[in-house]
Amino acid sequence: MTKDFILIMDLIGTVAFAISGSMTAVEQGMDLFGILILALTTATGGGFIRDLTIGSLPPVVFRNPVYMILSFLTAGIVFLVLKFQSLRPHSERVRLVYEKTLLVTDSLGLAAFTVDGVCAGLVQTDTNLFLAVFLGVITGVGGGILRDLFAGKKPYVFVKHVYALASLGGAVAAYVLPRYMDSGISIMISFGIIILIRYLAAHFRWDLPRISSG
Amino acid sequence: MTKDFILIMDLIGTVAFAISGSMTAVEQGMDLFGILILALTTATGGGFIRDLTIGSLPPVVFRNPVYMILSFLTAGIVFLVLKFQSLRPHSERVRLVYEKTLLVTDSLGLAAFTVDGVCAGLVQTDTNLFLAVFLGVITGVGGGILRDLFAGKKPYVFVKHVYALASLGGAVAAYVLPRYMDSGISIMISFGIIILIRYLAAHFRWDLPRISSG
Amino acid sequence: MTKDFILIMDLIGTVAFAISGSMTAVEQGMDLFGILILALTTATGGGFIRDLTIGSLPPVVFRNPVYMILSFLTAGIVFLVLKFQSLRPHSERVRLVYEKTLLVTDSLGLAAFTVDGVCAGLVQTDTNLFLAVFLGVITGVGGGILRDLFAGKKPYVFVKHVYALASLGGAVAAYVLPRYMDSGISIMISFGIIILIRYLAAHFRWDLPRISSG
Repeated sequence: MTKDFILIMDLIGTVAFAISGSMTAVEQGMDLFGILILALTTATGGGFIRDLTIGSLPPVVFRNPVYMILSFLTAGIVFLVLKFQSLRPHSERVRLVYEKTLLVTDSLGLAAFTVDGVCAGLVQTDTNLFLAVFLGVITGVGGGILRDLFAGKKPYVFVKHVYALASLGGAVAAYVLPRYMDSGISIMISFGIIILIRYLAAHFRWDLPRISSG
Repeated sequence: MTKDFILIMDLIGTVAFAISGSMTAVEQGMDLFGILILALTTATGGGFIRDLTIGSLPPVVFRNPVYMILSFLTAGIVFLVLKFQSLRPHSERVRLVYEKTLLVTDSLGLAAFTVDGVCAGLVQTDTNLFLAVFLGVITGVGGGILRDLFAGKKPYVFVKHVYALASLGGAVAAYVLPRYMDSGISIMISFGIIILIRYLAAHFRWDLPRISSG
Repeated sequence: MTKDFILIMDLIGTVAFAISGSMTAVEQGMDLFGILILALTTATGGGFIRDLTIGSLPPVVFRNPVYMILSFLTAGIVFLVLKFQSLRPHSERVRLVYEKTLLVTDSLGLAAFTVDGVCAGLVQTDTNLFLAVFLGVITGVGGGILRDLFAGKKPYVFVKHVYALASLGGAVAAYVLPRYMDSGISIMISFGIIILIRYLAAHFRWDLPRISSG
């Protein structure tokens, strides 16, 4: 049951991250190939770095083709939709629905990938808090970092909001909670923590302190 | 015979990629050290990522010094030539010959590195189409991606033409063909496919579809 | 004794590199999370790439938490100091002392990390000059490369001065010298070579040749 839940969330996250990669590629004027590759990179890049870090080779993305196929399918659909959409004026309402959908799926993806990353760490014999949390966060945000680097942008995760903090909070929970409760329940709670922080941050426009450059 | 052919193409590719790395470094105003390192990165970076991906460590570039030495030699020659060349006006004809030469050697390098990458995958026991093709393409284009990232440019391969598509087509061929024919012949055909797509794309100015930003 | 010396230098280097990462993050307008991550990346990114290259997994940064904790502590202090400092005018003298201190600690860090990287290579059975020197240099300068990539800047090490050359010189020494003398002494000499080149380069404003773009 827990495994099915994580798998479904992983698939949703893959689609959401592939959409965000495709959109970034389109913004940057890349061609169809660039769109496909940036979708794949965003959706699977975090897991790729996670697998390199623990020496689980070849990385999962090449062992289970479903993530790659799903990324390409998503990118292809985004490409077709944008081609078609550009022919007529956007309704404000469609855009709003689109942005809400992207926020929700992206949050689910961040949560699923983060929990996934920590679980990959817990399987290792020599895991500690630092490694497990790193694996969780890098699986959650690593694809977005590569996406921005390849698009020639400053990585979003370093600049804005508490995106990575949500991932961090969930990763710590996913590492600590299994000592005190059933692992299925702890996964659900960690998952919920990420969604909650992300939602509250977006809703209340939370921001972390920074040095005012004034 | 096939092995000798691939080795010779690898050496040509190393020189071509080292030239392209050196030229990029010069364009960006880097000093001699930057030129040497960018030449090395462009020529060997793809193979480095390939070896990390399959856990073939330490990477080939450190096991067989010929690629490193050849990269440095090439970068040194480019540096001297440009120092000397800048003293007198460029003839248009020299520039044309130079660009043609670079296109041809770069194509040979892309083909050799791609086929090489797929072969590295075929040696692994748990290779599938996705892993083998990734290894081929990343060996072919990975050095150029790192070159552009280090030079502060948007990676060329994501923006322009069908460069990576040639690598992709050849990688698929190099994975599939050995099932139906002698591996030496299949390598030659895959090699030829890459050269052909690259040549046709450059000649007919092929381009992949993109979303018009108009 | 030698081990203690290297460890102390490593800790100093970690602090220096974490400061440089924090400062870069502040310059780029990142928030507290970005500052912490960029400090960690700068201080431990080079060792991370080194460990991936030789398959020493999980990377040291996750096996010994002291480097991570020290990076975060340093970043937190930098953040507080800058928050506080911005309230009153900087005295020119404070700024000068600050820059001198940063140069000295950064040099110590570069030296310690470089020697460390070569030593990690010497432990491997199949090390040669190329691998050992790469491990030394990437441990020394890799964190700075990642820092600049994440900050959206062209990597400093490719653009300016003989920073990497100091690392390179020390790395070659750390590989070659142990054949002729006690390994403790060779480490000290290699360490000194890096400090010396770096100091002389900064003092005499040494620069490597480049192609004049005039």
